[in-house]
Amino acid sequence: MKNFNELLKTETEFINERIDELLPKKAVFQDRIIEAMNYSVEAGGKRLRPMLVLESFRLCGGSNEALVYPFMAALECIHTYSLVHDDLPAMDNDDYRRGKLTTHKKYGEDFGVLAGDGLLNYAYELMLEAVVSCSSDADRQSCSKAAAIIARKAGIYGMVGGQSLDVWLTDKSMNAQELDFIFRLKTGALIEAAFMAGAVLAGAEDSIVEKIEKIGHYVGFAFQIKDDILDITSTQEVLGKPVLSDEKNHKTTYVSLYGMEKAQRDVDDMSNCAVGLVKELGNNGFLIDLIEMLINRDK
Amino acid sequence: MKNFNELLKTETEFINERIDELLPKKAVFQDRIIEAMNYSVEAGGKRLRPMLVLESFRLCGGSNEALVYPFMAALECIHTYSLVHDDLPAMDNDDYRRGKLTTHKKYGEDFGVLAGDGLLNYAYELMLEAVVSCSSDADRQSCSKAAAIIARKAGIYGMVGGQSLDVWLTDKSMNAQELDFIFRLKTGALIEAAFMAGAVLAGAEDSIVEKIEKIGHYVGFAFQIKDDILDITSTQEVLGKPVLSDEKNHKTTYVSLYGMEKAQRDVDDMSNCAVGLVKELGNNGFLIDLIEMLINRDK
Repeated sequence: MKNFNELLKTETEFINERIDELLPKKAVFQDRIIEAMNYSVEAGGKRLRPMLVLESFRLCGGSNEALVYPFMAALECIHTYSLVHDDLPAMDNDDYRRGKLTTHKKYGEDFGVLAGDGLLNYAYELMLEAVVSCSSDADRQSCSKAAAIIARKAGIYGMVGGQSLDVWLTDKSMNAQELDFIFRLKTGALIEAAFMAGAVLAGAEDSIVEKIEKIGHYVGFAFQIKDDILDITSTQEVLGKPVLSDEKNHKTTYVSLYGMEKAQRDVDDMSNCAVGLVKELGNNGFLIDLIEMLINRDK
Repeated sequence: MKNFNELLKTETEFINERIDELLPKKAVFQDRIIEAMNYSVEAGGKRLRPMLVLESFRLCGGSNEALVYPFMAALECIHTYSLVHDDLPAMDNDDYRRGKLTTHKKYGEDFGVLAGDGLLNYAYELMLEAVVSCSSDADRQSCSKAAAIIARKAGIYGMVGGQSLDVWLTDKSMNAQELDFIFRLKTGALIEAAFMAGAVLAGAEDSIVEKIEKIGHYVGFAFQIKDDILDITSTQEVLGKPVLSDEKNHKTTYVSLYGMEKAQRDVDDMSNCAVGLVKELGNNGFLIDLIEMLINRDK
């Protein structure tokens, strides 16, 4: 029997192929913008959000898997655009991401803005094309509902909202409500959207989608608490980036607010809740392993 | 009988009310991003795109007008985001637009990026919410088709594509194909989308939507040729901005490529074609007056 790491590798390759097929192809006058967009997406990453859509779809017993691919690619485009714009000089001003030049360093700041815009818009082109291509009203309803959920969780009531507060509070101290809001929305919202979209596309009823949203919430939240923990407990060698950066930047973190003991306990609790809900809903050992890897990682 | 200017004023007010109702309301932790987004939309403008959706819907005999409002607001959000990002230091670096501070000058460059992102995403939140709220499959099909058209025309195969080539060719000379591409896509595509969305929402069949797209093409294209003409023939007093700026910036324009005589003749021809097609399709005197005002303006 293959172990989890082999399965993960195979699935990541499978997802990369599906995304590649759906990325924009070269066009005479749009060469540069398309190149910048594809460069950004192909710069890598774990394809976590597409994987969660797919695995949530499988957990909920979805059958026509091709329905899911445009939504997998769309979520990756939205995630990527948020990184491209985050890296801009006006925001975090980062020159490198995962060892490669950031989009604006490679293509210029104007194309950093435009590639992000192009990717965000392209996500909706993919999803709406999927909706209008549906051959039944049932599919049309599922696809448009999944797209609407993703839209809501990507915008000011989701990712952009969380990011905005985080940017606004940079170099300021945060209270517990503010940190909670940023944790829930900045990263959490898109993870929730991935879980929910997979369930909706599988035809899950509302009560199931609500449980799936909770799984997404626990996973996204625990993931970020873990980030704060690793910044203290890990080493630069393991993490691949400087540790103790939050303390140096006087950043309010989950650990600085609640202490290390509660932080670790909450990670464990949320991890257990997420896995418990998955088991309640169906049989997906790979998803359980994936969740445990994300939450109990050491880097 | 009211004259055109009075009708225009009444309709603009009506559209502003519909847009206001649909803009995001204040939320505890999203105050600043929502304020920046609403500031950008409320900075004014002619509401041309929403008006074209509405008038195209009326031309095609649409009945349930409320179906159109989210699409009117969505197009204005997309148009506004493109201006907000265009004004950024990484792009045109403009401090003022229509006499008011640009979004990034008022809220900071980070919130200029984020407000644009928030607006673009919000356009899709509005349209997808409209799709999932539909009570019949026929409406669901119309709404999703209209949203898909807008998405396509707003992205790399539309506005973002045109804008990207324009940015890329800044300070370079252009050939006729490049100028044509930029004219068609940078401004033209969203005007076509407005016309087409109105028709699709009214339930028009594909052959009608194609004619409507042509009207949009003529209007959008003629509008921009006129821009190039006015830069030469008008005065700073009338135009409210410096004239002869294209020549000073060695910018390739329709007039520099084809000469003034052909430029003016093409405006007249396209104007006649657009009005001819409108008359062929139905009875909408206001839309004809609007098209003539847009094309034959003196500022």
